[in-house]
Amino acid sequence: MNIGILGLGTVGGGVVNVLAKNQAEIERRTGLQIQITRAAVRDSSQSRICPTDGILLTQDAMQIVNDANIDVVLELMGGTDLSKKLVETALKNGKHVVSANKALIATHGNELLALAKANGVHLLFEAAVAGGVPILKSLEQGLSANKIEMVAGIINGTGNFILTQMRDKGKDFNDVLQEAQDLGYAEADPTFDVEGIDAAHKLAILASMAFGCQLNFAKISTEGISKISNEDTAFATELGYSIKHLGIAKNIDGQVQMRVHPTLIPKSQLLANVDGVMNAVLVKGNAVGSTLYYGAGAGAEATASAVIADLVDIAKGTASLDILGWKTLGVFPNQHKDEIESVFYLRLLAADTAGVLADITAILASKNISVEAVVQKQIDAQNNAHIAIITNFVKTGTINAAIADIQNKDFIQEPVKMIYVETLD
Amino acid sequence: MNIGILGLGTVGGGVVNVLAKNQAEIERRTGLQIQITRAAVRDSSQSRICPTDGILLTQDAMQIVNDANIDVVLELMGGTDLSKKLVETALKNGKHVVSANKALIATHGNELLALAKANGVHLLFEAAVAGGVPILKSLEQGLSANKIEMVAGIINGTGNFILTQMRDKGKDFNDVLQEAQDLGYAEADPTFDVEGIDAAHKLAILASMAFGCQLNFAKISTEGISKISNEDTAFATELGYSIKHLGIAKNIDGQVQMRVHPTLIPKSQLLANVDGVMNAVLVKGNAVGSTLYYGAGAGAEATASAVIADLVDIAKGTASLDILGWKTLGVFPNQHKDEIESVFYLRLLAADTAGVLADITAILASKNISVEAVVQKQIDAQNNAHIAIITNFVKTGTINAAIADIQNKDFIQEPVKMIYVETLD
Repeated sequence: MNIGILGLGTVGGGVVNVLAKNQAEIERRTGLQIQITRAAVRDSSQSRICPTDGILLTQDAMQIVNDANIDVVLELMGGTDLSKKLVETALKNGKHVVSANKALIATHGNELLALAKANGVHLLFEAAVAGGVPILKSLEQGLSANKIEMVAGIINGTGNFILTQMRDKGKDFNDVLQEAQDLGYAEADPTFDVEGIDAAHKLAILASMAFGCQLNFAKISTEGISKISNEDTAFATELGYSIKHLGIAKNIDGQVQMRVHPTLIPKSQLLANVDGVMNAVLVKGNAVGSTLYYGAGAGAEATASAVIADLVDIAKGTASLDILGWKTLGVFPNQHKDEIESVFYLRLLAADTAGVLADITAILASKNISVEAVVQKQIDAQNNAHIAIITNFVKTGTINAAIADIQNKDFIQEPVKMIYVETLD
Repeated sequence: MNIGILGLGTVGGGVVNVLAKNQAEIERRTGLQIQITRAAVRDSSQSRICPTDGILLTQDAMQIVNDANIDVVLELMGGTDLSKKLVETALKNGKHVVSANKALIATHGNELLALAKANGVHLLFEAAVAGGVPILKSLEQGLSANKIEMVAGIINGTGNFILTQMRDKGKDFNDVLQEAQDLGYAEADPTFDVEGIDAAHKLAILASMAFGCQLNFAKISTEGISKISNEDTAFATELGYSIKHLGIAKNIDGQVQMRVHPTLIPKSQLLANVDGVMNAVLVKGNAVGSTLYYGAGAGAEATASAVIADLVDIAKGTASLDILGWKTLGVFPNQHKDEIESVFYLRLLAADTAGVLADITAILASKNISVEAVVQKQIDAQNNAHIAIITNFVKTGTINAAIADIQNKDFIQEPVKMIYVETLD
């Protein structure tokens, strides 16, 4: 099996290194020697994390996808323009493709998967979600007996690192972001990570494989972590929760909801204890119940582990040609955002006049929202009360209407903060 | 595809129920209608958890494994005598077999897998380990790029329930066992669960799939939880650990160690937070790092989820015919028990005479064992000191020699308790 690799950076270099160090083990598993014969790089004079002996380098990636001797192309370059053209060409030329590119799959996966099927070749992308954690294979194979009701994942390591540091050190978002950038965990432009776009790409893939429907990135409601304050993390801890940036997809009686946002999770849940740069995905099936998959979501060798697992599946003939692992995709309408039911956390800053809490709870009660927990912190120098409330299970439209009413009260000193609470039950 | 089922109890009934309720979903995934046509039961007049319409019942299981119309046999009856004969016959007759029977696979798997291969049929057993958690498929497929260095699992729900209750309620082993029996979590004869035999069956399977070697149940060193006292659980909590009953297999430079025993795990590790009847397996690969798989280890529908997943893999043709997922099995000698390196917890009851701690630490120091943490509880009515010690990383032979020396001291009032500590790093 001849393999061409597009991109020899962190992931590509990791693939070369892991194939070298585990050659004997992989051959013992598969009976096959898997070797990289060609690689496309941007700059052939650049220094790399892997040796390139025996690999023919080129700066023209088109040469590889058009090379009649190449059987499998590994797309590990990122981006969605050139990479799309290259993957299309490879598939049209009858080559299997393994990609680690979540942006490409989330935004162009439907057409690329159809193209792969039409050409009788595989397009696999285990590495695109949660790095080395075999979550896509688990959804496709291990959980194939289930109707999947929910996936909920910590699928962006940078965001999880920042939230963990904010909680454990009581620091503000901006200070921790700077620290993450200094450590190399966050990019100079952190938008993709902290505003949830990267997590939304991964959620689009998870939801489609879980429910068996087309990829629908555009329908994901996405909110980042940049508006989480250290007051929120402190209140969450006090109330018995941890704030995590979750990608959540649910199939509620045939209606799908997909959302990426900060979420309070009860500290008793395993997912609330997934800290630092680690990733984890909880999957709830209607037979198996709740299962969880945890591991490194990034890094050269962890990501390479997933890329090579796809390669081995192709080599052994154990990969499925079905699109997203489904013989027939279903069509599920998106649930309107106002209809999404959840528990909510509200944080309010109110002038400490008599009857403030009574006024707030009266507004909530008028919408049939009950209060499960409330914490009021001591009055600050401006004579304001800091209040956090956990509600019962209500519709997003209902909580938003209540917030609008509360916001109109004279005693409210700043915009009411609302965060989803996921009990994961 | 015609399926015959052996045993229509909890698991068998669960399979029938899950196939019925998820029929549309499974057909959408596979393009196939999977149906049970025959079932062998001990007593056809018994009441069941599933409907039996359309299933031809028999009390003679041999009829099913010899039925030319049956393509796949589900062995869900348990035991190792009759079930072995039935599985052998089914395989010789060219039928695929899916089994949930860990005892059968752990003790007769080598010959049965060879028989399956010789007959060109599958013998799959995802449900035999950790119920619905797709841990075997993850080892075989998702982690195929890795040299697996360690598996460490909470793989017996009954034991984990008992240890969790002991910790959270400060109760003694026997009280909690009684409670577990009353709740139906533990059998009337709880030996298999609390003495670690069930966990050892599962560990044998995990180790063989992880390392790619023959099943070797006889070589597992097994210790149950019946000797854990509530003093141990309290000390563990005070020292920042949780006591879990783990199955641990490591491949240390080509030498394998397999052991089932109570283990102190740092509370900061996800595995230490897996409570109640839940199961979880941590797998450390040399590319992916540490990954963890969590879910229900028992129950009708959770176990059925794994059985049907195997069935779907056979139906779709995505299962591998290789034994244990390996083209070539390796041969790894077992590491001698004395050579196993670990951190240790020691608990001592000593007469509160001057210099007791100095004497104990002098013995440890004489064997190059250093003390990482020590807690001494207040003197009891008998004027005895209760002492717990966490050591550094040393060989089991070394700690045992030190314990023998300590035990010889006049001030020691009862046998020194030793428990392995796994940092999971």
